[in-house]
Amino acid sequence: MNRKLRMGMVGGGKDAFIGAIHRIAANMDGLIELVCGALSINPEIAKDSGKSLFLPEDRIYLTFEEMIKKESELPADKRMDFVTIVTPNFAHFAPAIMALDHGFNVVLEKPITFTLDEALQLKKKVDETGLTLCLTHTYSGYPMVKQARAMVAEGQLGKIRKVWVEYPQGWLSKLSEREGNAQAAWRTDPKRSGKSGSMGDIGTHAAHLAEYVTGLQITDLCADLNIMVEGRALDDDGNVLLKFNNGARGVLMASQVAAGEENALKIRVYGENGGLEWAQQEPNTLLAKWLHKPTEILRAGGNYTDRLSSYATHNCRTPGGHPEGYLEAFGNIYRNFALTLSTKLNGGTPTKEMLDFPSVADGIRGMTFIDSVVASAQSELKWTKFGS
Amino acid sequence: MNRKLRMGMVGGGKDAFIGAIHRIAANMDGLIELVCGALSINPEIAKDSGKSLFLPEDRIYLTFEEMIKKESELPADKRMDFVTIVTPNFAHFAPAIMALDHGFNVVLEKPITFTLDEALQLKKKVDETGLTLCLTHTYSGYPMVKQARAMVAEGQLGKIRKVWVEYPQGWLSKLSEREGNAQAAWRTDPKRSGKSGSMGDIGTHAAHLAEYVTGLQITDLCADLNIMVEGRALDDDGNVLLKFNNGARGVLMASQVAAGEENALKIRVYGENGGLEWAQQEPNTLLAKWLHKPTEILRAGGNYTDRLSSYATHNCRTPGGHPEGYLEAFGNIYRNFALTLSTKLNGGTPTKEMLDFPSVADGIRGMTFIDSVVASAQSELKWTKFGS
Amino acid sequence: MNRKLRMGMVGGGKDAFIGAIHRIAANMDGLIELVCGALSINPEIAKDSGKSLFLPEDRIYLTFEEMIKKESELPADKRMDFVTIVTPNFAHFAPAIMALDHGFNVVLEKPITFTLDEALQLKKKVDETGLTLCLTHTYSGYPMVKQARAMVAEGQLGKIRKVWVEYPQGWLSKLSEREGNAQAAWRTDPKRSGKSGSMGDIGTHAAHLAEYVTGLQITDLCADLNIMVEGRALDDDGNVLLKFNNGARGVLMASQVAAGEENALKIRVYGENGGLEWAQQEPNTLLAKWLHKPTEILRAGGNYTDRLSSYATHNCRTPGGHPEGYLEAFGNIYRNFALTLSTKLNGGTPTKEMLDFPSVADGIRGMTFIDSVVASAQSELKWTKFGS
Amino acid sequence: MNRKLRMGMVGGGKDAFIGAIHRIAANMDGLIELVCGALSINPEIAKDSGKSLFLPEDRIYLTFEEMIKKESELPADKRMDFVTIVTPNFAHFAPAIMALDHGFNVVLEKPITFTLDEALQLKKKVDETGLTLCLTHTYSGYPMVKQARAMVAEGQLGKIRKVWVEYPQGWLSKLSEREGNAQAAWRTDPKRSGKSGSMGDIGTHAAHLAEYVTGLQITDLCADLNIMVEGRALDDDGNVLLKFNNGARGVLMASQVAAGEENALKIRVYGENGGLEWAQQEPNTLLAKWLHKPTEILRAGGNYTDRLSSYATHNCRTPGGHPEGYLEAFGNIYRNFALTLSTKLNGGTPTKEMLDFPSVADGIRGMTFIDSVVASAQSELKWTKFGS
Repeated sequence: MNRKLRMGMVGGGKDAFIGAIHRIAANMDGLIELVCGALSINPEIAKDSGKSLFLPEDRIYLTFEEMIKKESELPADKRMDFVTIVTPNFAHFAPAIMALDHGFNVVLEKPITFTLDEALQLKKKVDETGLTLCLTHTYSGYPMVKQARAMVAEGQLGKIRKVWVEYPQGWLSKLSEREGNAQAAWRTDPKRSGKSGSMGDIGTHAAHLAEYVTGLQITDLCADLNIMVEGRALDDDGNVLLKFNNGARGVLMASQVAAGEENALKIRVYGENGGLEWAQQEPNTLLAKWLHKPTEILRAGGNYTDRLSSYATHNCRTPGGHPEGYLEAFGNIYRNFALTLSTKLNGGTPTKEMLDFPSVADGIRGMTFIDSVVASAQSELKWTKFGS
Repeated sequence: MNRKLRMGMVGGGKDAFIGAIHRIAANMDGLIELVCGALSINPEIAKDSGKSLFLPEDRIYLTFEEMIKKESELPADKRMDFVTIVTPNFAHFAPAIMALDHGFNVVLEKPITFTLDEALQLKKKVDETGLTLCLTHTYSGYPMVKQARAMVAEGQLGKIRKVWVEYPQGWLSKLSEREGNAQAAWRTDPKRSGKSGSMGDIGTHAAHLAEYVTGLQITDLCADLNIMVEGRALDDDGNVLLKFNNGARGVLMASQVAAGEENALKIRVYGENGGLEWAQQEPNTLLAKWLHKPTEILRAGGNYTDRLSSYATHNCRTPGGHPEGYLEAFGNIYRNFALTLSTKLNGGTPTKEMLDFPSVADGIRGMTFIDSVVASAQSELKWTKFGS
Repeated sequence: MNRKLRMGMVGGGKDAFIGAIHRIAANMDGLIELVCGALSINPEIAKDSGKSLFLPEDRIYLTFEEMIKKESELPADKRMDFVTIVTPNFAHFAPAIMALDHGFNVVLEKPITFTLDEALQLKKKVDETGLTLCLTHTYSGYPMVKQARAMVAEGQLGKIRKVWVEYPQGWLSKLSEREGNAQAAWRTDPKRSGKSGSMGDIGTHAAHLAEYVTGLQITDLCADLNIMVEGRALDDDGNVLLKFNNGARGVLMASQVAAGEENALKIRVYGENGGLEWAQQEPNTLLAKWLHKPTEILRAGGNYTDRLSSYATHNCRTPGGHPEGYLEAFGNIYRNFALTLSTKLNGGTPTKEMLDFPSVADGIRGMTFIDSVVASAQSELKWTKFGS
Repeated sequence: MNRKLRMGMVGGGKDAFIGAIHRIAANMDGLIELVCGALSINPEIAKDSGKSLFLPEDRIYLTFEEMIKKESELPADKRMDFVTIVTPNFAHFAPAIMALDHGFNVVLEKPITFTLDEALQLKKKVDETGLTLCLTHTYSGYPMVKQARAMVAEGQLGKIRKVWVEYPQGWLSKLSEREGNAQAAWRTDPKRSGKSGSMGDIGTHAAHLAEYVTGLQITDLCADLNIMVEGRALDDDGNVLLKFNNGARGVLMASQVAAGEENALKIRVYGENGGLEWAQQEPNTLLAKWLHKPTEILRAGGNYTDRLSSYATHNCRTPGGHPEGYLEAFGNIYRNFALTLSTKLNGGTPTKEMLDFPSVADGIRGMTFIDSVVASAQSELKWTKFGS
């Protein structure tokens, strides 16, 4: 397909943190152009935002309904190819389902929906339409996360015994939602965020990372969720014991009151022969620890392609020592989505590396995780079945 | 007291790892001299070991009973001042109680005894005799651990909300106890080690560190103990959720099957205003993370004495940048014990810094931890009371 | 100016490493669109590359002369605003001067030209035309480099005494230029690269960084340049002593035979009160070391805006803990250039933060550095004047 | 020899930093006992210090002459075996030569003497007497430094091309010698310290480390020595270019005005196939970087004895992850000296591992380094021959 893919955006107006991130990620590789948007429910912000993004006036829409309808009426060589939805959690489902109904592919922020039921409906719609839905679990876009997944899959560690995933942040250490922090306000509001705070926002990332890297599935969990800041309505901290479907055990920690931490997502996986360690804040490095050999520092773009998986190299833009970061990881999700979509539109078959982006199935796992972790937190029994 | 203290040693013959460590720690500061030993239950090893340590032949004993009896009959200016007991766990209690009964002070490896009941008896005996018992929870001997404790105690972090302590080792990743590893053999043997493996050996260190640094007490726990290596009799891995007496929550992880890890004890504590992070493998550094200030790297011997607690500076031998390690931390326990004992023998009052070494009370906490964590592991309920 | 800036590219066809980097950097922030290119001197590659970048056929040019001429004939609302030149060093000058002559602004890879004389001519032309020339000394685009510069400028370190800048790479450890490595081939060829190899390629970055961070100028240098790999024509390694115009001393090391290193540019600056340390491979961190206070870890996007310079915050896209990297640093140079150009085109006055990108003056410093370092290497005297 | 070696100490009274360090190092392994001392030229301090070290009154001497004379008159089974001299540099030679003349072996602080001529005389005396002289270049006592040396010697890196050794400290950033800092006072005094300050104190360590690790010898140097703090008499900072006898090039940096640094000695060595990096402040780690393989983290006590040299393992007391530090490195020098001496006294042949401690030959290299670096600093020519 000899053109860029055309993107429309729902949400993400001025000052909306994650919208700007999505646009950078989509712009980066020159495969996608933003052609229209319904950028805010506030008409003034929607217009101003569209203008500052150089959108033509007639494609700055005031509602997602208007956008999807109008775009669907444009000629095929002009209308958008897909919709990116970056609204708060409660406002994911309606535009997503309408977009699919009108033949548009979809990129969605996580968690996929407000409820598990919505996620299941979305899955059904995706299956029916044959369209592509991409869920932006950013952290699985890092090359060295993909390298870790590949090394586990190849059996380099032997059977996995233990998984440690932790996600400490400190930004909700005070009652910021009462001090004018808009981001904090909706994240801590059950009506906009859902039934869990920290677990919904970042615990889902941690759970996704654990399953993505190990290729295993969580089967049981034992959660201790807490509200550490008085006056808050949703959990801002939690510790969860995990069982996996191969017998491995694990711990998942997610906290937004770990004062002084930034965004310190980290995973450690141990098997019979060694372990892997990856930390998001230094993402180009993967430590491979071995039982009877020195620890190795595997690096994105490293000069030893025999040791690096095609999944890792496919997702690097620079040679070793030219650090790529969060935006490139995000960009990898958009890039793989775009490559998949272009290939499909051209009638081709996407490679396995292109297809390696989170989908609606990951979204259902995420919503099930939220439900299960909240159920476990309310239970006096140690173990709660995942999905029960 | 114008002389070195005289030490006798029970256990710790040739090839016994921990005995050599105790001797280095005791030698280091020139406050203690080894004068006698019952170094092995094997007479040949006992004699050879004694000779290689330059002990006089008449003070190389073949049993601890002989040693304690004979030494107690020596004139006061010659006989040992204290006994160090470095035998496997099951053989702690008998020599300790006999030593106390004969007026000797005691240094004991942890866990203090084989059972909680023994620990309680030992406590009673210590109280009755007024003698000094020192338990070598090595990791609390590090200056930057003491610094962390002091900073929490001074309220620098505000109320503590979260405690993360982890202790991954990899040395039991294979069934080494069947392959001639003597250390592995007794550690994994319930008859010599007690009712828990990894939790008894290293989980107790982690629990002690968590309580020592925070000044809090664990009140409830939820344990998942596992045997990861088939054929093993005791837990080699475990994850434990914790509640503390101020409402803080925590996680304790101890694993001896984290393949590729050495001795990676680490603690992180978060309060309302910031967090602290200390890792045993880089022990001269304490990270202090703040909500609205850059993270600080506090260093043992740092050139900012206004920021370092007297507990930290008292336990440093070198200026900043001249790293002290595990042996010095161990040495600090002996040094503080020796300074306390000498001061008492001279009729003086030890300073609070001298008295800062683990005692029989810590030993009881440790045995209670083992009992509780094993009880919790066997329970279907989420929470088990500490000490219930 | 309510539109994206239009970019034309000279060089940077398929498989040309740095061209792709420039495009990502230019795309990232949605301020620039690639509209035309003379992407290779090989017509097939030029065409293929243009197509794969979705350029319209009539704006895929075969030579830079054709491109500049044809674009200058297009209507103002269509023709490119600036040319990016990413050819090897020897082919910088001609397109740059022609572009300026035709009223186009210029973005140039470093080193600015093949000879100092060309650089001086370019300066003259820039001054005459009033157009904007931007030199992509990437590393000065990192927020924490800008933070370091600001801290020095504010006098936080006191008078600067010592500057250590090192740039070890390992990629030329073998005679790769004879083994089909095209990048190595031109870099080590005096006809294409200039009179210096390692110093021209990476030493110039190191020198720029040293002057940029300290705000000082090198006045004298003492160079030891070496060819470590037999058969090579240009220096692949060098060590240089430096004097600065305030009396500070320094060392600059640049090596491309530091086997096992990736791209380990690092600078340390010490003043009367403290020091700063920044390493390109972990670029979001700036260590601030103090004489009588703990070392601080300053972080891009850190939650302490009172401590971060406006130059640092202006150049961050993400909050703390969401690592930005090399491409974002590169993107900052394009972004500031674009903001400056747009503001000028709109008749406004760029802010000081917008104007903070390397210019022709930096290019002249770089060419003078190359000349001086080569002269010093050939001298038996210790010190050679910078620019003599 | 079935006894501890008997040590006498010259210098090292109360509050003398390095004397205490020597005693800990000597005590640590139970191979040496302090039996006498001439601990200060101040009689009160000498007596007090001796008492606090539990020396018998009749072996607390007031001068080194008295000590050496009286000890030499004691019966062989009582008198000291060797003298440790820890006075300032100017007071090394007299006690050393007298000790050798009276048949005592010697341990000396570095730099070995005040002048090169004295060092040469000492060498002659050692050769004549056949006694053992040990020079405490502490940093070569670290196991991972020995590992680095062994890896280079085995050719793992191929031919060495580049050596980078740096030693930044910050403790002389102010004119501390005028503010009552006794250590600073003699270190910066040419009458007590010698003709160089920073190069004599720490540059010699760096030079020794470079030659020790690489097995090469410096042949030429180009020095820039500076007095950064006004009012100081000796260099407090210096940068030196180096040539080695195999054609390798290097840089040596030593600064005592690197404000905010502690004791950050670090060496990097690059050969054809890879590089090594060791930093004193994290001494149990050696990074091995490879051209086409991931970097490896070699660790003291690591669980891969096939990869660790016998020189490294012989100098470890603990298993991996139980960090040893500066005092253990110092202790290794004493331990190897003691093992060598005991073996000789018993008529045996010390192993090569035992003999691996710095000797009078290293002392002569050090004094020549000081002379050469000072000569180079005064020369206008780039290169000065080492030893010219």
